[in-house]
Amino acid sequence: MLDGTPGWELKIRFWIENPHGRVVLGPGRIELMELIDQHHSISAAARKMGMSYRRAWALVQDLNEAAGETLIQVSTGGVGGGGAAVTPRGQEAIQLYRRLALQLSTVTATPAEK
Amino acid sequence: MLDGTPGWELKIRFWIENPHGRVVLGPGRIELMELIDQHHSISAAARKMGMSYRRAWALVQDLNEAAGETLIQVSTGGVGGGGAAVTPRGQEAIQLYRRLALQLSTVTATPAEK
Repeated sequence: MLDGTPGWELKIRFWIENPHGRVVLGPGRIELMELIDQHHSISAAARKMGMSYRRAWALVQDLNEAAGETLIQVSTGGVGGGGAAVTPRGQEAIQLYRRLALQLSTVTATPAEK
Repeated sequence: MLDGTPGWELKIRFWIENPHGRVVLGPGRIELMELIDQHHSISAAARKMGMSYRRAWALVQDLNEAAGETLIQVSTGGVGGGGAAVTPRGQEAIQLYRRLALQLSTVTATPAEK
């Protein structure tokens, strides 16, 4: 509820861009990173998201490129398989995103009562 | 800058939905409301936004319907002209939106340094 208006709800989308305006992190990318972190596999993460392996693999490449550093390390690489791991910087990126989500959800929960 | 990552920037989009998941307020609607408030005219507001009168008029109707109350009063109505004014509830809606924007921009400016 917002300002006494029953049922009005604040909706937020957020993402992180690099200095060239290219998306580094967004909800889908974070979900993919977290699943890769759990399963150490791009194909398993892709399956969980109902996404093709090729699409997930391309997202990982784009994510690393946009970040300007390796957030997801693909150990054997290439289309078809291979292990994958979230690097320490990737872990920091996930944590950053989750902290921002928490901060933003606080705004959602207490919308400007003053 | 986010977490020591030079140039990474938090981007946020937000809007307000009614209980049926229909958009009540978003950046374009708020801009339109503020321009109507300044010019007391849908056509003048539409012109400022580079939007057709028909599009602006339809947005006003949709906004009022989604809100479930009159946020913009169209005095003579119809396509082609007529005065318009933001009602007191409409003013509250604008203020609510602006307060939320301010709160969210605070998150942008101090992104989880802890």
